[in-house]
Amino acid sequence: MPAVSEDLQARREELKSSSRWLHGHGRQTPAKLLERTATWCREHEVAFDVYGTGELIEAFEARVAELLGFEAARFMPSGTMAQPIALRVWAERAHNAHVGMHPTSHLELHEQRGYAHLHGLRSTPVGSAASPLLAEHFEAVKERLAALLIELPIREAGGQLPSWGELETLKQTIREAGTRLHLDGARLWECAAHYGRSYAEICAGFDSCYVSFYKGIGALPGAMLLGPRALIDEATVWQRRSGGNLFTLAPNVASAAMLLDERLARMPAYHQRALEIARVLSAIEGVSVLPDPPHTNMMHVFLALESEAAMTARDRVAETFGLWLLNAVRPADVPGHSRFELYVGEAAMQVGDRDLDAAFRALLAG
Amino acid sequence: MPAVSEDLQARREELKSSSRWLHGHGRQTPAKLLERTATWCREHEVAFDVYGTGELIEAFEARVAELLGFEAARFMPSGTMAQPIALRVWAERAHNAHVGMHPTSHLELHEQRGYAHLHGLRSTPVGSAASPLLAEHFEAVKERLAALLIELPIREAGGQLPSWGELETLKQTIREAGTRLHLDGARLWECAAHYGRSYAEICAGFDSCYVSFYKGIGALPGAMLLGPRALIDEATVWQRRSGGNLFTLAPNVASAAMLLDERLARMPAYHQRALEIARVLSAIEGVSVLPDPPHTNMMHVFLALESEAAMTARDRVAETFGLWLLNAVRPADVPGHSRFELYVGEAAMQVGDRDLDAAFRALLAG
Repeated sequence: MPAVSEDLQARREELKSSSRWLHGHGRQTPAKLLERTATWCREHEVAFDVYGTGELIEAFEARVAELLGFEAARFMPSGTMAQPIALRVWAERAHNAHVGMHPTSHLELHEQRGYAHLHGLRSTPVGSAASPLLAEHFEAVKERLAALLIELPIREAGGQLPSWGELETLKQTIREAGTRLHLDGARLWECAAHYGRSYAEICAGFDSCYVSFYKGIGALPGAMLLGPRALIDEATVWQRRSGGNLFTLAPNVASAAMLLDERLARMPAYHQRALEIARVLSAIEGVSVLPDPPHTNMMHVFLALESEAAMTARDRVAETFGLWLLNAVRPADVPGHSRFELYVGEAAMQVGDRDLDAAFRALLAG
Repeated sequence: MPAVSEDLQARREELKSSSRWLHGHGRQTPAKLLERTATWCREHEVAFDVYGTGELIEAFEARVAELLGFEAARFMPSGTMAQPIALRVWAERAHNAHVGMHPTSHLELHEQRGYAHLHGLRSTPVGSAASPLLAEHFEAVKERLAALLIELPIREAGGQLPSWGELETLKQTIREAGTRLHLDGARLWECAAHYGRSYAEICAGFDSCYVSFYKGIGALPGAMLLGPRALIDEATVWQRRSGGNLFTLAPNVASAAMLLDERLARMPAYHQRALEIARVLSAIEGVSVLPDPPHTNMMHVFLALESEAAMTARDRVAETFGLWLLNAVRPADVPGHSRFELYVGEAAMQVGDRDLDAAFRALLAG
C-alpha cells in the first residue's frame, strides 16, 4: 500500500471525527467513559481491588462464571495473556506441549506467537482459513494434541459459526479423544442470537473459555478466563508471571460490570440490524457480504474496488453524506476487490436503510 | 500467623477506613481518581490510544525518556512484565540466559519467577539481603552474566541506597565487564533528594531502566521501560506476546501524566518529613528504623512487639487517636520483634510530630 501523506492522514482524521460512524458503538472518549465509570463507582461504593482481591472483582468473576456455566473465573488484562495461559496449563497437565487451533486464530496472527516464544507450546493449524473448524478437521490430529482452541465465531472469516449440530459433534469428538477443548470467546457475546441458546448451553462441553469486555461490550480493556477452579488457580500464578496481576484492575472491572448487562440486552437487536444491513448491501452491485446472511452482528463486506480507491471513495462519502462507512480496508483475493469488517453496534442502529443504500451506491460509484 | 476471624477482619477494615493514615498518600477511591482523570482527559482533549499508538502515550513516553536521559521508552501495564522482558532481550543479544540480581529483588520474591518460567532465564543472587549490591559482589560472577539488575533504592532493605561513589564504581565495573546493567527503578522517583542529583545523572550508565507510576506517583497501575530504541522496539514485541499491548492504556497513561510533575515536586518534602519521622520514632524505646537516617522517603520500622501484638495495639491506637499507623506487619529476625514498611507521602505530611510520638508510645505500650 502506498504511504499516505500527512496532509491526507490529517484530513481523514478530521472527516472521521466529524462524521457519524457505521461501525461499532460510535465515537468514545476517555473523558466520557471514565466519567460514567467514576459515577458508577461512586454509586456502588467501589473500593480498589488489591492485586485482584476485592469485592467488585470477585463478585464480577462469580457473576460471569455463573452466566457461562463455569466453576471459576479470573479477570485478566487481555485475551492475549489469558489464552496461551489456559493452553499451557492444559499442556502441562498432559505432559504434551502440542496444541491445535484454526489457521486464522488470534494466537497465530496477532500475538507475535507468544504461545510459542513465551510458553514453549507448538501448534498445528487445524481446519481451513475460510470456514469454521469442524470435527472432521480434528480427526487427523486427534491422537497428538493436548488441547484444541476453537473460536466462536471466527472473526477472520466474517464471524461464521458452525451449525449447532456441527458444534455438538465437535464437542463430542474432542471429549472422546480426551483432548482439552478451549473456547476463544472474544466475540462469544455475539453468538447467542443466532443459536437461540443461552451462553451456558453454548459453553457446555468446553473445558475452559475466554471472553472479552472491550469489544462488543465497549468497556475498558479486560478479559476473563473461565474453567474449573484448579485451572483458574494455576492460571492466576501464570497471570502473575506474565505481569498481568496489576496493583488494581478496578477501572477495567467497573466499566465491564457497568456495561455487561446493558450491552448483552442489545445483542439481539444488533443481530437483527446486521441481517437487515446485509440485505441492503448485497442488493447493491459490486457489494457482497460474508457470511450471507450474517451469523452474528458482524460480517465482512466485499467491494468491487481496489483498496486505495475504496478509501478515497469513503472519504468522499463522508464529505457528502456525513457518514463514515469503514476504517481499515484490505485487498481481497480477487484482483480489483477489497474487504472490510463491519461490527454492527449502537452506531449502525442510528443509520437508516435508505441512507445506507445511498452511501454504499455512492461508494461503489468510486 | 493464626487466622483472623471475619469479625475482627471487618472491625479492622472499619477502623482503617475511619482513621487518618500514616502510610502513603492516604485513602483513594476509584471514583475520586477516575473523576479527576476524566476531567484531565477532557481538558487535554485526550483520545484513546489504539494498541499503544496515540498522541498522549507517545508524548508521555518521550517526556519520561527525556527526564531520565534514555533514547526511547515504552509504557507497559506493569514492572513485572517490563523487567524480565528487558533482561531477556539483553540475554538474547549476549546468547547467554544467565542474569544476576540482588537476593531480595522483586523478580525473585514477588513475581512467581516469571523470568525463569516464562522467559527461560537463569539467575544468580548477587550481594547480601540486608545491604545494597556493590561492585565487590559483582566481581565473583562478572565473567558469566549477560545482564545485572540493580534496584535503587532496595525496597526490602528499607529503601537503602549505595553511596554515590559506590554507585559510580559499580557502574564502571559493570561497563568494563561488558555486562548489561538494568535499573529497577520501582522507587527511582524517591532517590533524587538523597543524592542531590538529577534523575538523568542517576540513570547515566544504566543500559535500561524501569519506573513505576502507581507507587510514589499514586496514578493507576502503569510502568515504563526505557533504553536504546532497538531495545524498546524488541521489548514492544515481547509486550505483545505477554498480553500487555492492550487495546488502550489511556486511563493509566492519563493518570500518570496528570500526577507525575505534581508528585515529583513533592518528593523533597516527603524526604524531609521522613528524616523528621525517623528522628521521632528512633527516640522511642522499642522502636528503631532502617536505614537511620532514611535514604529516601521510605523506611522499615522495627517494633519490640510480636506481630500479633503489634496489630492489636495498632487497632487500639486507631480507636484512641484516630490514626492508622501501619497495614501489614511481619515478624523480624529477633524474637519478640516485628517490622513494617513506612512510605512517607501526602498522608504523613498531615500528621504532626507530637501526635506521632504519642501514637507510637501508645503502640509500644502494647
